[in-house]
Amino acid sequence: MRCEVIRVPASAPHDMKGVRALVEAGRLKPDEVIAVLGKTEGNGCVNDFTRGYAVSAFRAYMEEAVGKSAAHISYVMSGGTEGVLTPHFTIMSRSLEATETSSPDEKSLAIGVAHTRDFEPEEIGRMTQLQLVSEAVLEAMREAGIERAADVHFVQVKCPLLTTDVIHEAERQGKDVVTEDTYKSMGYSRGASALGVALALGEVDGASLTDEDICQSWDKFSSVASTSAGSELACCEVIVFGNASGANGPFFIEHEVMQDAIDGDALRRIIDKHPDAELVQVLAKAEADPSGFVRERRHTMLNDSDINHTRHARAVVGGVLAYVCGDPMIYVSGGAEHQGPAGGGPVAAIFKRANNDQ
Amino acid sequence: MRCEVIRVPASAPHDMKGVRALVEAGRLKPDEVIAVLGKTEGNGCVNDFTRGYAVSAFRAYMEEAVGKSAAHISYVMSGGTEGVLTPHFTIMSRSLEATETSSPDEKSLAIGVAHTRDFEPEEIGRMTQLQLVSEAVLEAMREAGIERAADVHFVQVKCPLLTTDVIHEAERQGKDVVTEDTYKSMGYSRGASALGVALALGEVDGASLTDEDICQSWDKFSSVASTSAGSELACCEVIVFGNASGANGPFFIEHEVMQDAIDGDALRRIIDKHPDAELVQVLAKAEADPSGFVRERRHTMLNDSDINHTRHARAVVGGVLAYVCGDPMIYVSGGAEHQGPAGGGPVAAIFKRANNDQ
Amino acid sequence: MRCEVIRVPASAPHDMKGVRALVEAGRLKPDEVIAVLGKTEGNGCVNDFTRGYAVSAFRAYMEEAVGKSAAHISYVMSGGTEGVLTPHFTIMSRSLEATETSSPDEKSLAIGVAHTRDFEPEEIGRMTQLQLVSEAVLEAMREAGIERAADVHFVQVKCPLLTTDVIHEAERQGKDVVTEDTYKSMGYSRGASALGVALALGEVDGASLTDEDICQSWDKFSSVASTSAGSELACCEVIVFGNASGANGPFFIEHEVMQDAIDGDALRRIIDKHPDAELVQVLAKAEADPSGFVRERRHTMLNDSDINHTRHARAVVGGVLAYVCGDPMIYVSGGAEHQGPAGGGPVAAIFKRANNDQ
Amino acid sequence: MRCEVIRVPASAPHDMKGVRALVEAGRLKPDEVIAVLGKTEGNGCVNDFTRGYAVSAFRAYMEEAVGKSAAHISYVMSGGTEGVLTPHFTIMSRSLEATETSSPDEKSLAIGVAHTRDFEPEEIGRMTQLQLVSEAVLEAMREAGIERAADVHFVQVKCPLLTTDVIHEAERQGKDVVTEDTYKSMGYSRGASALGVALALGEVDGASLTDEDICQSWDKFSSVASTSAGSELACCEVIVFGNASGANGPFFIEHEVMQDAIDGDALRRIIDKHPDAELVQVLAKAEADPSGFVRERRHTMLNDSDINHTRHARAVVGGVLAYVCGDPMIYVSGGAEHQGPAGGGPVAAIFKRANNDQ
Repeated sequence: MRCEVIRVPASAPHDMKGVRALVEAGRLKPDEVIAVLGKTEGNGCVNDFTRGYAVSAFRAYMEEAVGKSAAHISYVMSGGTEGVLTPHFTIMSRSLEATETSSPDEKSLAIGVAHTRDFEPEEIGRMTQLQLVSEAVLEAMREAGIERAADVHFVQVKCPLLTTDVIHEAERQGKDVVTEDTYKSMGYSRGASALGVALALGEVDGASLTDEDICQSWDKFSSVASTSAGSELACCEVIVFGNASGANGPFFIEHEVMQDAIDGDALRRIIDKHPDAELVQVLAKAEADPSGFVRERRHTMLNDSDINHTRHARAVVGGVLAYVCGDPMIYVSGGAEHQGPAGGGPVAAIFKRANNDQ
Repeated sequence: MRCEVIRVPASAPHDMKGVRALVEAGRLKPDEVIAVLGKTEGNGCVNDFTRGYAVSAFRAYMEEAVGKSAAHISYVMSGGTEGVLTPHFTIMSRSLEATETSSPDEKSLAIGVAHTRDFEPEEIGRMTQLQLVSEAVLEAMREAGIERAADVHFVQVKCPLLTTDVIHEAERQGKDVVTEDTYKSMGYSRGASALGVALALGEVDGASLTDEDICQSWDKFSSVASTSAGSELACCEVIVFGNASGANGPFFIEHEVMQDAIDGDALRRIIDKHPDAELVQVLAKAEADPSGFVRERRHTMLNDSDINHTRHARAVVGGVLAYVCGDPMIYVSGGAEHQGPAGGGPVAAIFKRANNDQ
Repeated sequence: MRCEVIRVPASAPHDMKGVRALVEAGRLKPDEVIAVLGKTEGNGCVNDFTRGYAVSAFRAYMEEAVGKSAAHISYVMSGGTEGVLTPHFTIMSRSLEATETSSPDEKSLAIGVAHTRDFEPEEIGRMTQLQLVSEAVLEAMREAGIERAADVHFVQVKCPLLTTDVIHEAERQGKDVVTEDTYKSMGYSRGASALGVALALGEVDGASLTDEDICQSWDKFSSVASTSAGSELACCEVIVFGNASGANGPFFIEHEVMQDAIDGDALRRIIDKHPDAELVQVLAKAEADPSGFVRERRHTMLNDSDINHTRHARAVVGGVLAYVCGDPMIYVSGGAEHQGPAGGGPVAAIFKRANNDQ
Repeated sequence: MRCEVIRVPASAPHDMKGVRALVEAGRLKPDEVIAVLGKTEGNGCVNDFTRGYAVSAFRAYMEEAVGKSAAHISYVMSGGTEGVLTPHFTIMSRSLEATETSSPDEKSLAIGVAHTRDFEPEEIGRMTQLQLVSEAVLEAMREAGIERAADVHFVQVKCPLLTTDVIHEAERQGKDVVTEDTYKSMGYSRGASALGVALALGEVDGASLTDEDICQSWDKFSSVASTSAGSELACCEVIVFGNASGANGPFFIEHEVMQDAIDGDALRRIIDKHPDAELVQVLAKAEADPSGFVRERRHTMLNDSDINHTRHARAVVGGVLAYVCGDPMIYVSGGAEHQGPAGGGPVAAIFKRANNDQ
């Protein structure tokens, strides 16, 4: 297996010009695309339709390019490009033709995808979602040939939310949903998904987990989970990024954990470890510290009734990481429940080895 | 002259508990206070009343503490604590009792204040405002004993804006105002003030300046101006921060210019120059790059109709600088027209010398 | 007893010019003022400091005008003047000098005020708050000489909310608060207060009420309650408006219930009943229908992550009632939990009898 | 000619379920559709992608339904469903098969469409746009068989705006655009389009019009223009609604002018004139009064830096008209420059005659 990652800027959520140009230039083979991670310029909250618009445009383009086989591509669009963040797509490709260039003792980037079944409204934000996500992570690892949890460096999960319609329908049927607040449901869904990742990777003890832990026990978390909620799906889609000895090619991935929103050193440590490699993409999660404090200083993100706290957090983390890596076209997604420590979050970096005759 | 700078967190715009505690502990002498720079948790735009509320509370407290002589204190409240920024006040004090501790060849922090006359609505954002601000800067330098423009490291100007009421009154009287958009008037007022600073310090050529340069000729700017518009005053209040050989005490100030919103290296350079000094406060300006790009990547700040671009910019610059200095309780103010290069802005740092027996 | 109501526009939250002018013109006697209801131009949500700013300015002015005796005045500032709503104050005065003009069989406006003790964080939004508000309503009725529940036409309650600070402090002490979401705490506090009014007036059966009813059992509500949460107090302040045979003067009050946000007919019915009286003020509550529908049509207020639903609702109800009465300077407050039916709310109108030789 | 109008609710911008159901039930013939007017749930300002998303979904569905001939359908999506407004589509159909039911002396609804050529950036918001829109209106009237200007009751124009990209490109080419503010460009484009309608219908004197009148001379306006700006087109699309003796069928249209945002009587007058007809749809424009006052009371819409004034205005007018007609699923579009008097706007109602055996 050989995995590649390429970024393309978007002038609007539905802009396929850049993608089309890459394909026409032979730099992207549409039939090898397995997943797309997008940053779209909506509010990243409940009524953000830029995510669905981007998926719709991408799906139409890929179907035009490769036909029915495009149906298996996994799209994860994360809304919100606050501050300096640049709207763009990160496209993951995978091919099975081995190349001769990779050395046998070097692990290379391996990407696996899987998805759960559709969830019932009453399952969202609870143990059922958590467990099925955990199973999907293990399945995606197998698919990617990643053997050890320590070789997993980023797990992106796209998960559903509860819309007003769904909540009312559930009420009519006497079903008990985790919250009647659409916005809050995004947090529960992200939290359950992240703990699902943690369970799969042995970061938490499955035997002790209950519904009550979800969005409560902040000391339980995954250091590599990145989960994002949207109204455009009813299941969870899982993309596992890791390094595998069975994979080849010049790409590889590493991760660190940001302890808080201004912990740029986390990314700096990764970059400093690979002075000769080209940084291809940064993937990170952001959240407003639920304690109301960052470095013992009060922040106002949680009390701001005009701007959602996830929007504040993305602006900060996007700025800090863009400074460290020198590029605002990175993937920073909001709402980091159980993704890294409270107020912090995972950050991963994908590199391309230098001196590699690709 | 001996100048001191102290920061105090605020739990709300009108919170005087911290200030009161400093006074009661003998760490702040209210009769030596000459100026207060605040970050208040409003939107920092037209309808931000947290600035006026803070001034009102501060004025009442200081009058209670020192009586009529409090009337000369200059208050500059900058709204907007987006992201990690912490609401707080920076209090500047000045005393005339010389101490023995400063060495003769060391310059120390010197602060001077001055203000213009009240402006007519049609003068705001135009050459009259620019020239009167320039004169006030020179007056404040003289008051502080700062001899050279090169010794000026930060000039804070609080300037007026055009409210809807004022615009309509001006229209009724047949007066031509620079813009009929209240929000835009904040930019013109900040821009004219900043060019006034630049003129005073020889950063621009006065002979060639016209009304048309204001908020147009972005290549003309001051590297040390920080201007902030509010509806609570009709004149411009100017506070000049610099170093003077006639001043003593352990405090001193330096500045650099951020080339763009993620240029954290500017602050890092200042800090690295003074490894033994204690960083007391950071003062900076932020703005959304008017080109629509940062490091050749598109940003969406100027097209966001839900969140004002100044709010985005403060979140980014606040995050980047908080990362560099490790503290979110810093002064980052939005709207950097003619304050540093387009998209960038000045950043100053106030230090306290170590090994100083204060 | 003789009660009067006068409105005064405000050019800003702290604008006392209009109040001062009324006093100087002899139209308002400051020593007779018992309560002030304000509409201030903030966001009406958690971080709305315009309410506190207005109270602070009013308190300072009244103390200047009447000294210590001003301390008993009740201030209820409701933030949010969305749409056409005009920032203003409604000032209620009460005097004991009887006039000869009122006929014995006519009831006139009577206003009573009372307040509860300060609440502990864990009491907010629960039965304790509900019961103490109920007692305060009965006390205010007695004070006003209003004998029957049917003569009560509007009960304004100002109630506390849970701030992030308070929530964290409660957590540290192991106290269980009703919600850890500051914004949601406003709803619980308003809901408990409204059911307290309903209990006092016999609109609900006290024996069956439990904590679970608050913000759940929407079929339990008061037709005259108007409750408003703010961070500036820890107790509940209650102002009861009704008609009493023991009161005299030309003012009287009536109420109706809006069934939904566009039920302008409710106010029209009141106005049509009194063709010869002068309408002095309208008082109403607004909320986004929690069902997600108005007249079986979907609304998007609850899914909008950019604008709070209370802001949408005030804009709508303010517009509808301003159309019906022809005046945008009316009191429309948001968040109508248990205040009128779900999605609707109480509306009251204060009139001045014509042909009354005042 | 025979024109029909049908409304269909949308659960999201791209929701075609309702449209599909109408087609499958035989109530809508896709090959007769000539135009679609939509209300989508975005912010209605610069970065509102719900409009483009809706057009994209509709176009795909119609192409699937009728093939290439769908290309001529005109889509006008107006973003913003503030307050009670319901996201929905209004679909206009036209067929040439005459029916026998209309009486010879009755005029029936006639709809004509036309569009201008694409505009250069420097033409937007200026006389060229104005004049070409005027020509397109006359062309659409001819197409519809509407003989007199007095028979025109609503003219919808969809017009372009200047995006940041376009502005910068124009700058690079040395072209002078009407404004460098994307948001403001929407106003200029709407204003020029509305005056174009006024010119076509003889509501203004063409000889005296200049660039300076656009968004300045508010006393020049059209009583039937409704213009809406979006980034998804570079030309102006014009849809003229009127009554024509050459048309038949049960539908007809009338209009009135709202003098301000709370002038619900305008719609009431139209409805009262046709007690026996069924109201099918209401079409209106809304704006925040540029004077800062409504009925001599101050409003805060223009000073609100958190919520755009067009959003406030739609919420108010939507609420007032929904009250009058009893239905929130109506078309209220924001930004009424030169569309009705300053602060007011046109309102049109489409009816279906009763006792008509359709």
